Amino acid sequence: MDITFRSIGIIHTPFKVKEGMPIQPGGAQGIKGSIILKEKYTEGLADLPGFSHIYLIYYLHKSSGYNLQVIPFLDNTFHGVFATRAPRRPNAIGISVVRLISIRKNILKIENVDMLDGTPLLDIKPYIPEFDILEVENRGWARDISEKVKQYRTDARFK
Amino acid sequence: MDITFRSIGIIHTPFKVKEGMPIQPGGAQGIKGSIILKEKYTEGLADLPGFSHIYLIYYLHKSSGYNLQVIPFLDNTFHGVFATRAPRRPNAIGISVVRLISIRKNILKIENVDMLDGTPLLDIKPYIPEFDILEVENRGWARDISEKVKQYRTDARFK
Repeated sequence: MDITFRSIGIIHTPFKVKEGMPIQPGGAQGIKGSIILKEKYTEGLADLPGFSHIYLIYYLHKSSGYNLQVIPFLDNTFHGVFATRAPRRPNAIGISVVRLISIRKNILKIENVDMLDGTPLLDIKPYIPEFDILEVENRGWARDISEKVKQYRTDARFK
Repeated sequence: MDITFRSIGIIHTPFKVKEGMPIQPGGAQGIKGSIILKEKYTEGLADLPGFSHIYLIYYLHKSSGYNLQVIPFLDNTFHGVFATRAPRRPNAIGISVVRLISIRKNILKIENVDMLDGTPLLDIKPYIPEFDILEVENRGWARDISEKVKQYRTDARFK
């Protein structure tokens, strides 16, 4: 059964090609972007400016096909695709928490963007610590990535 | 332009109807569920057991239509739908961070489930503190919800 969504707007970022992009918002500190929401949804933004961080859920529109085992950008061994945030996945859905700077009418200014320019936006949700901050006991292969996230950039492996 | 996804599996929970459900995983502590992943994706689960928490991205399949202004379960005034986690949204996509208990072949045992039984799953991603734990300065209307999350249950407002 097909599940069909429609873009609610477009995310604009400085990243025109897939190579050389930051890896997750953690690698994109201070990088500015914007969202142009379709005007018909503007009323749905009411009260969003009160939140400093928001989830963006988006369509990884330049990603095609997938492998079930991948080497993610931050590692050098294969992992199951569902144990990674690699863009080539059975459903090409991305999520990122970005900083919300301002909203004017249907235009959102955001920061810490890690997605391609022109990315179709599917949803915006407020980032709420009570829901979204969890105490983690284990983080699998992603144990020692704090420094890597800041330094590494994307390469051609997910063309 | 339509964006089309397919369910990669089904989430099973004790919640057969929309009323009386917990509100977010924060209200669902210890409630057990499972995921039956389509067998063809089993290989994509490799290395996921190393993670204690995972994102589930799913289709809110019993949600139809939307309003741009809604009163969320945890409040009593209207907010823009994108400033809430209400299920009736322009694209009926839900995200939850759940605890991963075990994986055997294509079956995942999970805890802290806040979705309806039979929910179509779209994606699984590892919850990684470096990517997903953010220091928040402002949380808008959701300032004082810590206690409410534990006590409140869903009602009929999003029928």
